[in-house]
Amino acid sequence: MPDNPQRADGERVLADLNALRAIGTYKTGVHKPTFSEPHKRSLDWLVQKLPDAGLSAAIDGIGNVFGTSAKPGAKLLAGSHLESQNYAGWLDGPLGVVYALEAARVLNTDPAFKGAVEVAAWCDEEGHFGHFLGSRSFVGQVTEADIDAARDRTSGRTMREALGELGLAGRARIKAEPGRHVGYLEAHIEQGDTLESGHLAIGVVTSIVGIWQYRINFVGEQNHAGTTRMAVRKDAGLALAKFCVAIDERFPAACGRRTVWTTGRITLDPGAPSIIPGTAEMLFQIRDDDPAVVARLEDLLRTMAGEVNALERCTVHVERIRIGAPASMNSGFQDAIEAASKALADGRSLRMPSGAGHDAQMLATIMPAAMLFVPSIGGISHHWTENTADADIVTGAQVFVDACRRILSG
Amino acid sequence: MPDNPQRADGERVLADLNALRAIGTYKTGVHKPTFSEPHKRSLDWLVQKLPDAGLSAAIDGIGNVFGTSAKPGAKLLAGSHLESQNYAGWLDGPLGVVYALEAARVLNTDPAFKGAVEVAAWCDEEGHFGHFLGSRSFVGQVTEADIDAARDRTSGRTMREALGELGLAGRARIKAEPGRHVGYLEAHIEQGDTLESGHLAIGVVTSIVGIWQYRINFVGEQNHAGTTRMAVRKDAGLALAKFCVAIDERFPAACGRRTVWTTGRITLDPGAPSIIPGTAEMLFQIRDDDPAVVARLEDLLRTMAGEVNALERCTVHVERIRIGAPASMNSGFQDAIEAASKALADGRSLRMPSGAGHDAQMLATIMPAAMLFVPSIGGISHHWTENTADADIVTGAQVFVDACRRILSG
Repeated sequence: MPDNPQRADGERVLADLNALRAIGTYKTGVHKPTFSEPHKRSLDWLVQKLPDAGLSAAIDGIGNVFGTSAKPGAKLLAGSHLESQNYAGWLDGPLGVVYALEAARVLNTDPAFKGAVEVAAWCDEEGHFGHFLGSRSFVGQVTEADIDAARDRTSGRTMREALGELGLAGRARIKAEPGRHVGYLEAHIEQGDTLESGHLAIGVVTSIVGIWQYRINFVGEQNHAGTTRMAVRKDAGLALAKFCVAIDERFPAACGRRTVWTTGRITLDPGAPSIIPGTAEMLFQIRDDDPAVVARLEDLLRTMAGEVNALERCTVHVERIRIGAPASMNSGFQDAIEAASKALADGRSLRMPSGAGHDAQMLATIMPAAMLFVPSIGGISHHWTENTADADIVTGAQVFVDACRRILSG
Repeated sequence: MPDNPQRADGERVLADLNALRAIGTYKTGVHKPTFSEPHKRSLDWLVQKLPDAGLSAAIDGIGNVFGTSAKPGAKLLAGSHLESQNYAGWLDGPLGVVYALEAARVLNTDPAFKGAVEVAAWCDEEGHFGHFLGSRSFVGQVTEADIDAARDRTSGRTMREALGELGLAGRARIKAEPGRHVGYLEAHIEQGDTLESGHLAIGVVTSIVGIWQYRINFVGEQNHAGTTRMAVRKDAGLALAKFCVAIDERFPAACGRRTVWTTGRITLDPGAPSIIPGTAEMLFQIRDDDPAVVARLEDLLRTMAGEVNALERCTVHVERIRIGAPASMNSGFQDAIEAASKALADGRSLRMPSGAGHDAQMLATIMPAAMLFVPSIGGISHHWTENTADADIVTGAQVFVDACRRILSG
C-alpha cells in the first residue's frame, strides 16, 4: 500500500514495464509481433496481474484482454496495447497498459471509486494483421469475414490460424456495452520530440490527426539503358524524383503548422540496372488534424500533376487510397489531464495533436476519449532504441492516475 | 540456289526468323529465357539447320551451339544468341544467328570460300544466369566454379540443374583455338532510334561502350511519419530524389555527345507508408566509349556527394561496383561492312558506337571483331513490340553476307 492511496506507485510501474520488456527482449527493446509467442505470454502476464486490481480477467476471441469489474454504474475504461512493431521499443503500448493497470490498482482499492476503473489491452494496434483490429472489434466495426481475411503482413499466417494456435479460436468477442463506460483514457509515449525539446512532462492530446494516403503513378517508356539517347527518353523514375523534390519545395507554403507528409515507398518498374523505368510508383501520405488543410494540399498535389501532364515527357496520376478522419479528444478529459499535470508535474504540460494513430481514435467513435503523452528521448519511435526517462515514466503514471480520479469525480 | 550465288536469300532469312519466333511465342515476340524449353528447342532447330551450310553441329557443355567446318586454314566466325529477355522481342539475338547461318549457307557452297564461315550461338547473352557466360566460356574467362555458382535470377534454378535437365551435363566446353579464326562478325538490331531517325539501313559499329555501375547509398534517420516534425526529419528517400534531380541538371554540362546514364532501381528502407526512410539506395550506371568522359562524370558524382555530406541532413556514399571497359571494333572489318553497304544498301550506313553490350565485346578480347546493326522500329528494345521492317532485315542479310565475303577476301 503506497503512502498516499491515491497516487501511483512509481517503482511498481517501472517493475511491471521491465517485466514486460523481459518477454521477447530485443537489444534494449522488444520483438513482439501480434500473436507471436512473446505477445501471448505478455497477454497471459496481464491476465495474472488484473485480479490484484480487483478485476476479472479474460482474453476474448480477437485477442483483446479485458479486466472487468462487478461494480454497478458507469466506469472509466483505460488501456493501450501489448504487441510491438518488429524489433521495436519497449514502451510503445505497454506504457499505457501498465498505467491503466496502476490506475485500477490505486483507484479500485479506494473506497471512493472501488471498481470504477476497467482495463483493456487492444490487440494488433500495430497493424500486423490489419488496421486497429482489436479496438475496432470492440466498437463494432469488425465482422467475422474481416477476421477470415486478415493475414500477417510479414509471415502470411492467417489470423484464424494464429487464433487457433493460441487457443483463442471460437471464443466470443467482447463488444462495448452502451452506458457501461463514462469514457476512455489512454497513455502513450509521444513518439516525437515536442515534449523533450520544450522540457515538458505531459502532452494533453487535443486530437488524433487524420491520415490521407495516396498512390502516385508515373508512366514513361521502358527502354534499353544503353541504346536510348538521353534526348528521347521517357524515364518514369526521374519524373518521380522531380515530383518528390517539387513537393518538398511547394508544400511548405500551403501546409499547416504541424502538417507532415512522407514518401514511404518508391518502386521503379522493372527495377533493373540496365533498363529505363517505364513506370514508377510512390506511396505518399499527408497527416493533419484539419481536413481543410489537407484538402488544400491535395489540390496542390493535383495542380502539380496537371503541370507535369501538360509540360513533361511522362504522365502522372494521383489516386487517393485512404482517408483517416481526425478524432477530437474530449475537452473535459483534457481539462482533467491538465489539472493533474498542474498538481503533480509542475504544470509542465502542453496541449498538442497526436501525429500517430492510436486505439483512442476508435474508442472516440462511441464514447468520450482522451490521451496523455510522456516524452520520447530524441523523439525516436518504432525502433529498439525508443526510450523515456524513468522519472518521466513515474511522473506520467502519477498524472494518469490523478486524471482518472478527476474524470471519475467530475 | 539464288540467282546470284554470293547474295543472301531474303525469303529464306525471313522464314528462318519466323520459324524461331514460332518457338516460345509471346504476342508478336517471344518468351525464351536461357535453358527454358523453347530455348532448348531453338538450339535444336539450329543444330538441324547447320548441316545445310556444310557444317557439323554440336551443343557444348555450357549450351553454346557451334557449326564447325573441316576446311583447313583460318575461318570467319559469325553468330549471336538464341535466348531472349523475359517476354521480349523476336529479333534480339536470332537475327545475328540467322544471318550467320545464311552467310555460311551462301559462302560455304561458293567454291572460292568453301567451308570458310563457322557459326556460333552463344548461350545466355541476356544474362539470366550471369554475364555473357557462353562467349566468356569460349574466350577462356569462365571456370567450372563460375558455373557451379551460376543461378537463374528469376527462378533461382542453378545452372548445373538446368544443364542436367537439358542433357548437357558433363559435356566438354568448346574453347577458342588460336589461329582457327581470322575474326568474328555479329549482326544485331540497333535497339535505339539512330538509324531509323536518319533513314539509314546499316550501322557500322565502331566500339561497344563500357558500362560503369554505381551503388549510391543515403543514410538519414528512420522515424515515425506522423510524429516527427518536418523541421527535424532526416529523410533518406528525399535526399535520394534530390540527388537524382541534381544528376539530371548537372551531368549534361560534363558528358560526351553520346553518354547515357540511368537510375534503374530505387529502394527505400523500410519502405512502409508510415515510416520515414532511414536509408535509401539507388543503382546508377554510366555508359560511354571514352573512359576519360566517364572519369569526369564520376568525379562530378563524387563532388556532388561531397556537397550533400557537407551541407545536407543526410549523408551519401558513392560506391563503384562495376567497370566494363569499352571494346574497339576492328577497323578493317568496319571498312568491309561499309563497302558492302555501298554495294547493296545505297551507302545508307553510319559509323556508330553500340550503347548495349554484346558477345562481340568478349570475342574482341582474343580476335578481330566487328558488328553490323539494322534499324529498330521506334528504337524499341527488350519489349515484345520490338521489330524491324522486313525490307531492312533482308538488306541487312545481304550486307552481312557481302561483308563476310569481303573480310574473307581481304
